[in-house]
Amino acid sequence: MKFNIATIPGDGIGPEVIEETILVLNKIGEIYGHEFSFQEVLAGGIAIDKTGKPLPEETVEVCKNSDAVLLGAVGGPKWDTLPGDQRPEKALLGLRGALGLYANLRPAVLYTALKEASPLRSDIVEQGIDICVVRELTGGIYFGERGRKKEGKMGEEAYDTEAYSVGEVERIARTAFEIAMKRDKRVTSVDKANILESSRLWRSVVVEVAKDYPEVALDHMYVDNAAMQLIRYPQQFDVIVTSNMFGDILSDEASMLTGSIGMLPSASLAEGNLGMYEPIHGSAPDIAGENKANPIATILSAAMMLRYSLQLDKEAQVIEEAVIKVLEKNYRTGDIMSKGMTLVGTQEMGKLIVGEL
Amino acid sequence: MKFNIATIPGDGIGPEVIEETILVLNKIGEIYGHEFSFQEVLAGGIAIDKTGKPLPEETVEVCKNSDAVLLGAVGGPKWDTLPGDQRPEKALLGLRGALGLYANLRPAVLYTALKEASPLRSDIVEQGIDICVVRELTGGIYFGERGRKKEGKMGEEAYDTEAYSVGEVERIARTAFEIAMKRDKRVTSVDKANILESSRLWRSVVVEVAKDYPEVALDHMYVDNAAMQLIRYPQQFDVIVTSNMFGDILSDEASMLTGSIGMLPSASLAEGNLGMYEPIHGSAPDIAGENKANPIATILSAAMMLRYSLQLDKEAQVIEEAVIKVLEKNYRTGDIMSKGMTLVGTQEMGKLIVGEL
Ligand SMILES: CC(C)[C@H](C(=O)O)[C@@H](O)C(=O)O
Ligand SMILES: CC(C)[C@H](C(=O)O)[C@@H](O)C(=O)O
Repeated sequence: MKFNIATIPGDGIGPEVIEETILVLNKIGEIYGHEFSFQEVLAGGIAIDKTGKPLPEETVEVCKNSDAVLLGAVGGPKWDTLPGDQRPEKALLGLRGALGLYANLRPAVLYTALKEASPLRSDIVEQGIDICVVRELTGGIYFGERGRKKEGKMGEEAYDTEAYSVGEVERIARTAFEIAMKRDKRVTSVDKANILESSRLWRSVVVEVAKDYPEVALDHMYVDNAAMQLIRYPQQFDVIVTSNMFGDILSDEASMLTGSIGMLPSASLAEGNLGMYEPIHGSAPDIAGENKANPIATILSAAMMLRYSLQLDKEAQVIEEAVIKVLEKNYRTGDIMSKGMTLVGTQEMGKLIVGEL
Repeated sequence: MKFNIATIPGDGIGPEVIEETILVLNKIGEIYGHEFSFQEVLAGGIAIDKTGKPLPEETVEVCKNSDAVLLGAVGGPKWDTLPGDQRPEKALLGLRGALGLYANLRPAVLYTALKEASPLRSDIVEQGIDICVVRELTGGIYFGERGRKKEGKMGEEAYDTEAYSVGEVERIARTAFEIAMKRDKRVTSVDKANILESSRLWRSVVVEVAKDYPEVALDHMYVDNAAMQLIRYPQQFDVIVTSNMFGDILSDEASMLTGSIGMLPSASLAEGNLGMYEPIHGSAPDIAGENKANPIATILSAAMMLRYSLQLDKEAQVIEEAVIKVLEKNYRTGDIMSKGMTLVGTQEMGKLIVGEL
């Protein structure tokens, strides 16, 4: 099969980690008889520098006409003083909106080989962590109406609107239940239904969708309690489904519990098969170009791409297993280095993973 | 001096922990020559049972005419099936609104004697945790306009409004800076200014207020990052100031990091001296009436009351020191029990603390 992949290396360490990921994908193509055709496009700071805009139209066009999008990282201090709508992050929001990427999957997995990196007490992470946060990504307060009013409650007022409609909740809930069916069949829907009207709608729709998945156990949790329970007893969660804003917070919190942000991939899915895949870490400008970045999160993002956009489940698994093998052979990049391990650079890590495919 | 304190024992373990706290306050009165006059009023489930309403008008009146309000806990499964606006939690929201309790102080302190209870790795909590979250409590999405629209983006839509005006941010920022002046002189303002208009207003007002506190170091952090940083390195925070919604989440997260929710007090302050003081734990109906509840969080809430509403700083400190002494003598209620310690009940714990005053 032939697949068209749009790549957005972006800023900082983005280009380096994408490079290793392409090598991994090419090797997978070679072994399993697929052809990946990569088309590199601009977004983020580099796009600002070259075109004046964080997200050129051409980028959106190419992404729309691809089977999937692979992104490195965008942003950096160089562009932090620009006004809000010209900042590199606008590229992410723009892509989410333009491509209709309504479902953000954020697995938080603690690898046995990296258990010690978790900030949690060893008895709490004894049984590992394996949570998938399913964050709604094109609705809620991120995309609601906002503005200013001269005469507010106490002087000038600024407002933002958290809004959810039935269809939006329905599709994200369905995504969460489908994913739970392939995992431990437990969904926790997180909301603030004791306060928010949008949460009450959210909860009632999730309850309806759940009826189509009788095998999945559903429970509901308030967001403040979820922020506590994640730390207290992370194993109580399998799939967490929640709004854009709560998902932003809880997915990052869950990631931190694993202690290795450099390991964690993400997928942002549209209806149909299109998806955008990227590591959750940032552009790390301080180590950019030094062959120090950990390419694993991006390589695991490519595995998610194979699974969710290209329907290459087996190939995805082969990549994930290769990563585990390399970790078990004690190779580590700087960010996950610990005593007695072998320190390797970005390129060496890429090669080691290719070698295990 | 004579002080009028409204007490709201509420539900579950509420009455038991309030009882011990009154004994502590009476002893303080005896030693330092103050008179505390307590007037008990109804709120929460017990108010629903007796009056049909979670927050009777009489309760609001009595609280308004008191020097301070001391609350045990409200809520429980018995009332969980009631419609939203008749639920026990409405009493809390109602009191916050009616009394104008705009500033919620949520100290998250890890006591040396209870270090092991923290879910964090011991090397992370080596230097302890001592954070004060200052949460805005009468604005934002909790009190904004909400409703439904038949024709939303994808079917029926529900919406809530996050709104902040200059004066609201100004006063909560000022509270945070004042508190920081008495602590380590560091304020972290948490927002989502890369997305929300209300956060951009928030940030600009905080920056203005900061000019009046040149000794205080101010920094800004996005809420998703704050949720991670709290876990990774809690000592980087002194005072966190944030919106109602973000404060709800982050204050609970910070509390959980200490591992002993039964120890943590809170204060909710109005302009002037009025304040409401309550433990952060819930009503724990499973152990209600069994002399098992930990009264320390409520006793420490009373200490905050002495400090913030009654200007009795020294007396507040005496209570806090008494609590530490009892812990150092290895007395523990069930929730903070560990090997080698002496298990005591609610009443014994109260007596022990009275004994150390
Ligand atoms: C960059 C920012 C707009 C973004 C968000 O809040 O969605 C980021 O935090 C993320 O989670 O992808
Ligand atoms: C009971 C609920 C309305 C309340 C809130 O969200 O404010 C609680 O979670 C709290 O933090 O005091």
